Amino acid sequence: MDETRKIEEILEDEAAKMEAEAAPEPEKDADATIMMPAPIFSADEKPAEKPAEKPASSINAAVINPKADLAALDALEFELFALRYAMGELTSFAEVLDPDGATDDRGEAVGYLMEKSTNAVCAPEVGAMLDRLDANPAILNATQAAQVKIIKRDRAELLDVPVEEQVALAKLQNESALVWRKAKLSNDWASFEPYLDKAVEAMIRIAGYKNPDKDPYDVWLDDFEHDTDRAFYDTFFSEVKETVVPLLADVVAAGQPTEKIEGVFGEARQWALAKELLELEGLDKDRLWVGPTEHPFTGGSSRNYVIVTGHVYEDQVLSNVYSMLHEGGHALYEQNVDEKYNRTSLAGGTSSGMHEAQSRFFENYVGRSKAFARPLLTLMKKYFPGPLGRITPNQLYVAANRAEPGLIRTEADELTYPLHIIVRYEIEQLLFSGEAKASDVPGLWRDKYKNYLGVDVPDYTRGPLQDVHWSEGLFGYFPTYALGSAYGAQLKYHMIADGVDFDGACASGNLAPLRAWLTHNIWRHGRSKDPAELIQGACGEPFSAHYFCDYLREKFSSIYRLK
Amino acid sequence: MDETRKIEEILEDEAAKMEAEAAPEPEKDADATIMMPAPIFSADEKPAEKPAEKPASSINAAVINPKADLAALDALEFELFALRYAMGELTSFAEVLDPDGATDDRGEAVGYLMEKSTNAVCAPEVGAMLDRLDANPAILNATQAAQVKIIKRDRAELLDVPVEEQVALAKLQNESALVWRKAKLSNDWASFEPYLDKAVEAMIRIAGYKNPDKDPYDVWLDDFEHDTDRAFYDTFFSEVKETVVPLLADVVAAGQPTEKIEGVFGEARQWALAKELLELEGLDKDRLWVGPTEHPFTGGSSRNYVIVTGHVYEDQVLSNVYSMLHEGGHALYEQNVDEKYNRTSLAGGTSSGMHEAQSRFFENYVGRSKAFARPLLTLMKKYFPGPLGRITPNQLYVAANRAEPGLIRTEADELTYPLHIIVRYEIEQLLFSGEAKASDVPGLWRDKYKNYLGVDVPDYTRGPLQDVHWSEGLFGYFPTYALGSAYGAQLKYHMIADGVDFDGACASGNLAPLRAWLTHNIWRHGRSKDPAELIQGACGEPFSAHYFCDYLREKFSSIYRLK
Repeated sequence: MDETRKIEEILEDEAAKMEAEAAPEPEKDADATIMMPAPIFSADEKPAEKPAEKPASSINAAVINPKADLAALDALEFELFALRYAMGELTSFAEVLDPDGATDDRGEAVGYLMEKSTNAVCAPEVGAMLDRLDANPAILNATQAAQVKIIKRDRAELLDVPVEEQVALAKLQNESALVWRKAKLSNDWASFEPYLDKAVEAMIRIAGYKNPDKDPYDVWLDDFEHDTDRAFYDTFFSEVKETVVPLLADVVAAGQPTEKIEGVFGEARQWALAKELLELEGLDKDRLWVGPTEHPFTGGSSRNYVIVTGHVYEDQVLSNVYSMLHEGGHALYEQNVDEKYNRTSLAGGTSSGMHEAQSRFFENYVGRSKAFARPLLTLMKKYFPGPLGRITPNQLYVAANRAEPGLIRTEADELTYPLHIIVRYEIEQLLFSGEAKASDVPGLWRDKYKNYLGVDVPDYTRGPLQDVHWSEGLFGYFPTYALGSAYGAQLKYHMIADGVDFDGACASGNLAPLRAWLTHNIWRHGRSKDPAELIQGACGEPFSAHYFCDYLREKFSSIYRLK
Repeated sequence: MDETRKIEEILEDEAAKMEAEAAPEPEKDADATIMMPAPIFSADEKPAEKPAEKPASSINAAVINPKADLAALDALEFELFALRYAMGELTSFAEVLDPDGATDDRGEAVGYLMEKSTNAVCAPEVGAMLDRLDANPAILNATQAAQVKIIKRDRAELLDVPVEEQVALAKLQNESALVWRKAKLSNDWASFEPYLDKAVEAMIRIAGYKNPDKDPYDVWLDDFEHDTDRAFYDTFFSEVKETVVPLLADVVAAGQPTEKIEGVFGEARQWALAKELLELEGLDKDRLWVGPTEHPFTGGSSRNYVIVTGHVYEDQVLSNVYSMLHEGGHALYEQNVDEKYNRTSLAGGTSSGMHEAQSRFFENYVGRSKAFARPLLTLMKKYFPGPLGRITPNQLYVAANRAEPGLIRTEADELTYPLHIIVRYEIEQLLFSGEAKASDVPGLWRDKYKNYLGVDVPDYTRGPLQDVHWSEGLFGYFPTYALGSAYGAQLKYHMIADGVDFDGACASGNLAPLRAWLTHNIWRHGRSKDPAELIQGACGEPFSAHYFCDYLREKFSSIYRLK
């Protein structure tokens, strides 16, 4: 870690001294796998300091034309940007606006763009170009160095797995998704069971291509959130389990509060409220599109065109409010990546977990805080003075923080949510280690839901068939949802330690100080830093679960008047 | 030329004997301008009979691999389809949905897709492939032959003009559009005048690249509507002028009817009405997106995703109704091109004039007919029973057909519209022949508006500065608007002659018989036939203006009780 830091500093110093304009003309028609001799530097500059350290073979194999390589990097990035921009808009609007009849044509068009993008990254000359740049860090500024690192990683993701294996997987995913959909509707575990076994087998095999020296489940955990593995999550989840399982038992024993938000909340007004809420959250509406869909999500084309969707239920205003605050958190991250990373592979959030940290931050740490209840209620009353007339901020706070064991992950509250994740994480581990087969899953599910959440699972539909993930071969992804919440708690702690008046900002409804801290420490970096680096940089320490556990213990002990 | 012809004939003979399926694999990495020797035939087939007759040079220069060429054609078409699909959606939604902040990124992304698409068509190997296929019609089915013809034409459009000239034109267009916008706002002809002269000069020069043997204005007329020239439009417009100028004078003398549609028509209901109107018109809503914009247009990605936009004014329900019927006509054409042309260059309407024929057909011939007034009013009353309660179908018919000389083309009615076009056509001709300069335009404009429409032009803003077209270098485009109306009248006449009960269909509100005739004769052909071929095929005769003149004379004589 120290070593890396040192090298980066050296590179930055050197890069600062170089004149990109002074680099030689690109080599015309040169075979990219055969490289030309010796880098050429600005006439004002001495050569990089350590060429002698380079092994002889690399001198022959890696002749550099920095100007040509940097131009090729720029051209590649621009092509990827343009293709992603188009794919982003086409796929984001797919379920939102497109008529049903467009499905096939859109699929073909997006498939073409995807293939173009894959081919652009996987071209052999791109591999050679990246290797040359990587071997000559002195010619790269910090942004270019990060671009090379990230594109190399993206490239490896695409190239590590043989094409036949990818095709076979796509076929399995298609079949499996169809079977799962039917199985869920008809509460039929038996039909899905063989597909789950096949999916685990396939993902173990594919993990072997990606890294044969590593435990397959660790491969997937790291794939979705870099620098995580079973040891990391075991530590995290055991602390969460020790905190939440007894805490939840106490909450249940204490009985539910009576505070509720009820009424009929008209659709048009809910949308107006949603839009004002996004503005209050701090989104730039000149770079945002907001509209209705079946399942809310955040998508878009670039930091300058972020798409947030929501779904209004006229009897549930809180569902829309918290869904908007959640998606708005994702959107803030996307909109606030440094402008200089736009149109490069460094645009966008760095990982699933870090993205979820931002959405949960605004949904829960801000949105469900006592301090924020007042400005939130003021806004809600502006649109719904009737049904909310007599509600107090404290009543809203309590109603929005109701914690109750349930069967469905996506409907879970802040306290019980991580337990749903732990059930899945533990079962995935058993499937990957071979200690369990698909046929064991319903029993494991039943036992773990009983032990951790205290609920009886009445059927498969509300049990192990509820989520789409496994049918798509997604293993190791669920844990990032819980990790995001825990990142958020740690970020909140250190934001306050850095002097941000968190409660004051929430109470005033002016969240600018929170956004400034998050922009500086997380958002602006885009994909240039991995999540562990961001946490270390923001908090001065590695990830730790105890902030999350402390937060849950204090909050729910207080709301449910425990002890 | 003769030499080429001979070689082509030889190749055709050979190609006719070949089994496309038995052709060898495409030559990998072969330079397309260098062709490989001797086709390989199916094992069941004897070799072609005349290899010895081939001139030695042609053996080297033109060897055919039909399977590879047809595969290359398919691949090219698929690439063009995918790029157009993406560009179609991105540009259609640009002014409709996109936040302002997206403008630059979208511009860059669309620019990339456009360049990809241009490069795909202009690649030298594509030219060689098209030439080979064109020279071997026996291996092409009718669709493929039409594809080759149309792609060759599209390619020539892109390649005929030197790149420097295209760049200079783009620069002039940008400047000129800015100057025009300001000039229009400030009624300042003088500032725009030099740009109009420059634009005419540029377009004359560019026409020379396209076809040095042809009059430049004829080049542009043909460019926008194939097989038209000054002689064609002179005949058309003189007949229109002879009919409409005196007819309009009589209409004005007769005085305006008192029928009017007035009231406040709420936005949400107008949108619901618009959507039901599009369904009544016959659009497939599973392949349609409808939504609001500033300036109504029809766009989209493919026949399976057509985008219709409109603009609601709460005091003008007829504006929305007729705008929807108009855009719906464009959309019907796009949706009903033969499915087999989807994902090829034959998708979409064949020309500006033929597209306008479809939109005017549904806006005017159907929408403003006496027979359609009843079902239209029934639908309008469903949404606006209050303000329309006492209106009769005949009152709607009269109100919707008010004819009045005015200054603004885009606000003109069915009768006066062609006169606005004739003014522009005559001035464009004078500018291109050198008989007039930009400085003469205001005077010409004033005189012609007085002579044809009987109105005094009070300023430049409502005079020659009203349209954007000239500032963009669009000359020869205006005439297609009027031609579309006239095509429509001829189509209507022959539809009835073919036995379609036009008035019966309109009166019943079931337009299926009209759509069936138009689908068969026009829509399904997409770009596979030029407008003149379509008119000949549909009507059994070439275009003739007298149907349009007869229609206007009868209709407005009756409404205004002339004679």
